[in-house]
Amino acid sequence: MNQEVDVSLSAVPKDNSNFADKLIAAVKKKGNPVCVGLDPRLGQIPEFIKKKQIEKFGETFEAAANSFLEFNIGIIDAVEEIVPVVKPQIAFYEQYGFRGMWAYEETCKYAQKKGLIVVADAKRNDIGSTAQGYANTFLGEVELFDEKLPSLDADALTVTPYLGYDGIKPFVEACREFGKGIFVLVKTSNPSSGDLQDQMVKEGKMTNYELMSHLVESWGSDLVGESGYSSVGAVVGATHPKQAAEIRKYLPQSIFLVPGYGAQGGGAADVRPCFNDDGLGAIVNSSRGIIFAGSDQGYAEASRAAALEMIADLKTIF
Amino acid sequence: MNQEVDVSLSAVPKDNSNFADKLIAAVKKKGNPVCVGLDPRLGQIPEFIKKKQIEKFGETFEAAANSFLEFNIGIIDAVEEIVPVVKPQIAFYEQYGFRGMWAYEETCKYAQKKGLIVVADAKRNDIGSTAQGYANTFLGEVELFDEKLPSLDADALTVTPYLGYDGIKPFVEACREFGKGIFVLVKTSNPSSGDLQDQMVKEGKMTNYELMSHLVESWGSDLVGESGYSSVGAVVGATHPKQAAEIRKYLPQSIFLVPGYGAQGGGAADVRPCFNDDGLGAIVNSSRGIIFAGSDQGYAEASRAAALEMIADLKTIF
Repeated sequence: MNQEVDVSLSAVPKDNSNFADKLIAAVKKKGNPVCVGLDPRLGQIPEFIKKKQIEKFGETFEAAANSFLEFNIGIIDAVEEIVPVVKPQIAFYEQYGFRGMWAYEETCKYAQKKGLIVVADAKRNDIGSTAQGYANTFLGEVELFDEKLPSLDADALTVTPYLGYDGIKPFVEACREFGKGIFVLVKTSNPSSGDLQDQMVKEGKMTNYELMSHLVESWGSDLVGESGYSSVGAVVGATHPKQAAEIRKYLPQSIFLVPGYGAQGGGAADVRPCFNDDGLGAIVNSSRGIIFAGSDQGYAEASRAAALEMIADLKTIF
Repeated sequence: MNQEVDVSLSAVPKDNSNFADKLIAAVKKKGNPVCVGLDPRLGQIPEFIKKKQIEKFGETFEAAANSFLEFNIGIIDAVEEIVPVVKPQIAFYEQYGFRGMWAYEETCKYAQKKGLIVVADAKRNDIGSTAQGYANTFLGEVELFDEKLPSLDADALTVTPYLGYDGIKPFVEACREFGKGIFVLVKTSNPSSGDLQDQMVKEGKMTNYELMSHLVESWGSDLVGESGYSSVGAVVGATHPKQAAEIRKYLPQSIFLVPGYGAQGGGAADVRPCFNDDGLGAIVNSSRGIIFAGSDQGYAEASRAAALEMIADLKTIF
C-alpha cells in the first residue's frame, strides 16, 4: 500500500524441520530467551513517524497502518541481532481494518527476513473446517483456485483450548507438516485467570489449568524434536510463579511462552520456574517495556537498550 | 479494491439502544430465528463468479476476496427479506490475508445496509488493552490520531471465556456504550467439547459449562433490555439438547446463538431446548446448508429456498 516502506521481500526459504528445535537453536544462538512483543498503539508511536505518514495519507487508517509498519521496522532493525523471537499481537493491527492487517503481514515478513522467529499472537480457537482455516492462514497453506500457497505464514501461533482437542488438532497437524509451533493457553497472567482456570476438577485432584497441562503434554508428544522439546508449547503467565513451577513439572518437554514480565509486574525471579534447570524451555515476552522505552527519533535505540537490560536481568536467574 | 463490487456504502445510522431488544425485534419482524452463516470456501464458489474475478485479477488472493464478496452479496440479496441475522465466520476470509479481511468488512457493511444484524464470528479472547483492542475493532471505536472512529463495527461478536472476566469486561462495556452484543462460548457443538467443558467443578456440583453459564448470567445482568433479554448471550451447540435444556434454565435472560443445525447433525427437535417457551431466546445458525444449497447461476435462489425450508422446519417446534 505504501511503496516507500513496502517490505514485500522475496520469500524466506522454507524449513519444515521441527519448530521446537529451530526455536531452541535460536535461543542458544542469541544466548537469551527474550521475545519482543510488537504491540503498537497509535498514541505512543513517535510523532515524527505519524507526521510523515499523515502528510502522505491524511489522518486515515492507511496512515495508522503505515505508521505501525515503519515503527516496527525500526524496532526490528534495532533488536534483530540480540533477541531470537518477536510476537506481534494481532488485536492492535486489526483495529485498523484490512489496512492494519496489511501492516501485520508485512511486519511478520520483515521480521522473518531478518532471521527472527515470529509468534503470531492471535489466540485463535474454533472447530472443524474453521480451525483448519486458521491453521492454513497462520501456519500452513491456503487453497487458491488450482494451487495451494502460504498466507500469513508465521512460525508459531497462540491458541485457546476451550473447545477441546477438535479445536487443537488442525493446528497440531499443520505444525507437523510445515515445521510450525503452537502455544496453548494454560495459565494466563491476568488477575481473573482463576475464574475458570483455577477451578478444581477430577474429584478435586487437579485444577482446570493442570488438566490442560496434561492435555497439552499429550497433544504435543508426537512433535518432540532432537532438542527434547515439543512444538506444542504452553502460555504460562509470569505473574503466577507457584503455579508455573507445577506446570513445568507436568510439561517437561513443552516450551513456555511467558507473558507478564515487566509492565504486568513479573520479574526475573518470577519467570525462573518457567524454565527447566538447563536454562531452556521458556521464552519471555516484553512488549511495552521494550518498544515504548523511548520516544521520538531515538525510540529504536531505546528499545535496543531496554532489550539488553531485560537480557541482563534474565541472566541473573541462572 | 474492486470498484465494480465496491460496497463502501454511506454509513448505516447509529442506534446505541440495547442490542438484545434490537435482535428480538428483528426476530419478531421476520417471524423466525434463522441466522445465515456466511462462510465462503473457494472450492464451492460458483465457477461463473470465480471466472469473472480471475479474468480481472488473475489467480490471486484479490480474486479470491472479490469472489467471496460477490458471492455473499448474492446470498444477502436473496435472504435479506426473510431472515433476521447473518454470521460471517472470519477464519474463511482471513485465509486470504488483508484482501480477505477487506471482503469481510465489505460483507458486514453490505449486510447491515440491507437491515440485517451482523454477528462477527471471531471467538476473540485476550486481556487488558488487547481485549480492549478487539472490543474497539468489532463493537466500538478505534483511536485515530485526534479522533475516534468505528472500524469493523459489527452488531455482535462471539468471544471465548478461558481467561475469565478480565477477558470479557472490555466487550461488555462496549456493548453498553455502543448498543452491541456478545455471545460467550458456553457449550460448543463439537464432539470433544467435553474435554474441558464437561469437567465437574465446585465439588462435583456442576460442570465447567454450567459454571460458565452462571458467569455469563452475572456478566450480562446489567444489560437486560425491555425485551427481558440481555445483550450478553451464549453459544450453545444444537448437538447437545440435554445440556442446552439445563443451560436454558440457568440463563433465562440470555439469547443463545446455536450452531450445529443441519450439516453438523442437529435438527429442529434438537434446538427446541435452546428456546424459552415464548419461542424466543435463541437464534439458530446454518452455514453450508444454506449458502451452498445450489451452484452456478442459481446459487442465490437455491440459498433462499434452503433458508425458507429451515424456517419452515423450525416452525414445527412451536
